[in-house]
Amino acid sequence: MKYYLGIDVGGTNIAFGIADESKRLFAKHSIKTNPKRDFEIIIQDMAENIVNFLDTNNISMDSLQSIGIGVPGIVDFSTKKIVMAANLGWYDVDVIGELNKYINKDIYIANDADAATFGELLVSDGLEHMAMLTLGTGVGGGVIYDGKIFGGGDGIGFELGHLILQPNGLTCNCGNKGCMEMYVSTTALIRMAKENISDKSQMFAMCDGDTSKIDGKIIFSCAKNKDEDALKTLEIYGDYLALACYNTIMSYRPQALMIGGGISVQEELLIDPVRAKVAKMLSPMGDIKKTPIIRATLGNDAGILGACFLSLNSDWK
Amino acid sequence: MKYYLGIDVGGTNIAFGIADESKRLFAKHSIKTNPKRDFEIIIQDMAENIVNFLDTNNISMDSLQSIGIGVPGIVDFSTKKIVMAANLGWYDVDVIGELNKYINKDIYIANDADAATFGELLVSDGLEHMAMLTLGTGVGGGVIYDGKIFGGGDGIGFELGHLILQPNGLTCNCGNKGCMEMYVSTTALIRMAKENISDKSQMFAMCDGDTSKIDGKIIFSCAKNKDEDALKTLEIYGDYLALACYNTIMSYRPQALMIGGGISVQEELLIDPVRAKVAKMLSPMGDIKKTPIIRATLGNDAGILGACFLSLNSDWK
Repeated sequence: MKYYLGIDVGGTNIAFGIADESKRLFAKHSIKTNPKRDFEIIIQDMAENIVNFLDTNNISMDSLQSIGIGVPGIVDFSTKKIVMAANLGWYDVDVIGELNKYINKDIYIANDADAATFGELLVSDGLEHMAMLTLGTGVGGGVIYDGKIFGGGDGIGFELGHLILQPNGLTCNCGNKGCMEMYVSTTALIRMAKENISDKSQMFAMCDGDTSKIDGKIIFSCAKNKDEDALKTLEIYGDYLALACYNTIMSYRPQALMIGGGISVQEELLIDPVRAKVAKMLSPMGDIKKTPIIRATLGNDAGILGACFLSLNSDWK
Repeated sequence: MKYYLGIDVGGTNIAFGIADESKRLFAKHSIKTNPKRDFEIIIQDMAENIVNFLDTNNISMDSLQSIGIGVPGIVDFSTKKIVMAANLGWYDVDVIGELNKYINKDIYIANDADAATFGELLVSDGLEHMAMLTLGTGVGGGVIYDGKIFGGGDGIGFELGHLILQPNGLTCNCGNKGCMEMYVSTTALIRMAKENISDKSQMFAMCDGDTSKIDGKIIFSCAKNKDEDALKTLEIYGDYLALACYNTIMSYRPQALMIGGGISVQEELLIDPVRAKVAKMLSPMGDIKKTPIIRATLGNDAGILGACFLSLNSDWK
């Protein structure tokens, strides 16, 4: 049996998974990232965990076909180095080279959202052209064109979260103003709730008057109870998300636009209204309006599964 | 000798050109569009002009390899029909079928900005990945990927001018609010001048106090003379153009971003400042900041030349 190991590096956790040829994850493992540690220490930790993880699952290093890694940043496909992973504080680092010091295997690296998009593609119903927006602390985006991760003209892949959505908007970590990430991430949703909360709001009661405690759960639960401030928050957020969806569809004309991330499960309160807004915006474009907006199905496993099979993305070889 | 005929259909004029295998236009011809005429009448007029134009240049119909047509709207590559050409009032029309009633030749059709981008590619210094924004009454955009017009997942091509640049912005002809076209077209530049003119402005004097007479020439000529209102207008316009350039570069990562349209000749007052703004916005992205912004070189001939050789774009066959 051949095995594939995938790693999804996040700002908080590093998740490991093993899949076989059936493209299903059958083992998972997770450690804290502690991103303030030195880059070399984190990679060393990663290497030790790979060895132990394989061991625990009785998989020999020989039967491991390849390792794939998704990272929250910009990866240069030609050099295979990370150009920038702001949330990790990694700039111009060579994860593959560093990890190869410990483990002598083919290692593939990609942007985490690209890897997640590729993972969703692997389990999709035959999609070949697809775009995905992953809504989390930040916003990742991935584009699949002709069944492969679309790297654009320089093969560097995308950071759709850093497209400008709001001219002269809020300042992003990257230094620019009005990045998509500042308006459609879950961080943005929570900020919008804080901006729209009154002391009469159910949200205010649920967080005991301490608005720093507001999270997605509180917002959606109050919106379900028809709390005005929560509904207004979702209306504002939904308008921005619809804009982001519309621009993504207009830019890549995918067969489907997928929305991933924890809050994408909110079909009734979020996804359905966004579908309606986007359909209206696309209506002048004729048949293009049929582009469906679908929910990602793998959740957090998408990035791990996609990473497992980055070796299948032949453009990267 | 083999000949190629290209047609660039605009809202005001329909331009015809003939090229040989050297990929140079050696004959041009133009008629008024009069877009209020019936679609069938316009196409009939087009057919008669093709016949006469070939005749005038002593080119036999037999030596004509193909005809290519660029239209200001969305073209469906699979059906070869026009989905929408708002400025012409054409919706779901079959230009090829209609023209084939008069002329029995292979006819290719494309969005005019795609055709212009392809034309610029043909005379570029070996570019294979390129994006172009054409600034005129509206805004066209074209993307070349791997040497071919990039049609996206549904092969419909792009209308980059209808990406949203300003949420809740001005209402576009297409019905949406804040389209790029409303902020970086020459129409937008003139509107911005009118919004920023005071009666002390040189622009005010140059149009004899009748601001409806303001055009690009007045704006750039006054800006050259350091007129404050003209400079402010170009600053506002330049900020939007820089945003559009940044988003286009981030979306397709081309080897170069080309700017076309009449005002792209304004290197010192417009293109250079925009280059500086975009370089600053791209700087967090590491090496990507090197993406050059270059001026298109063919002017109005780009669309005609590109149309001549649409047959070379094998994806369209």
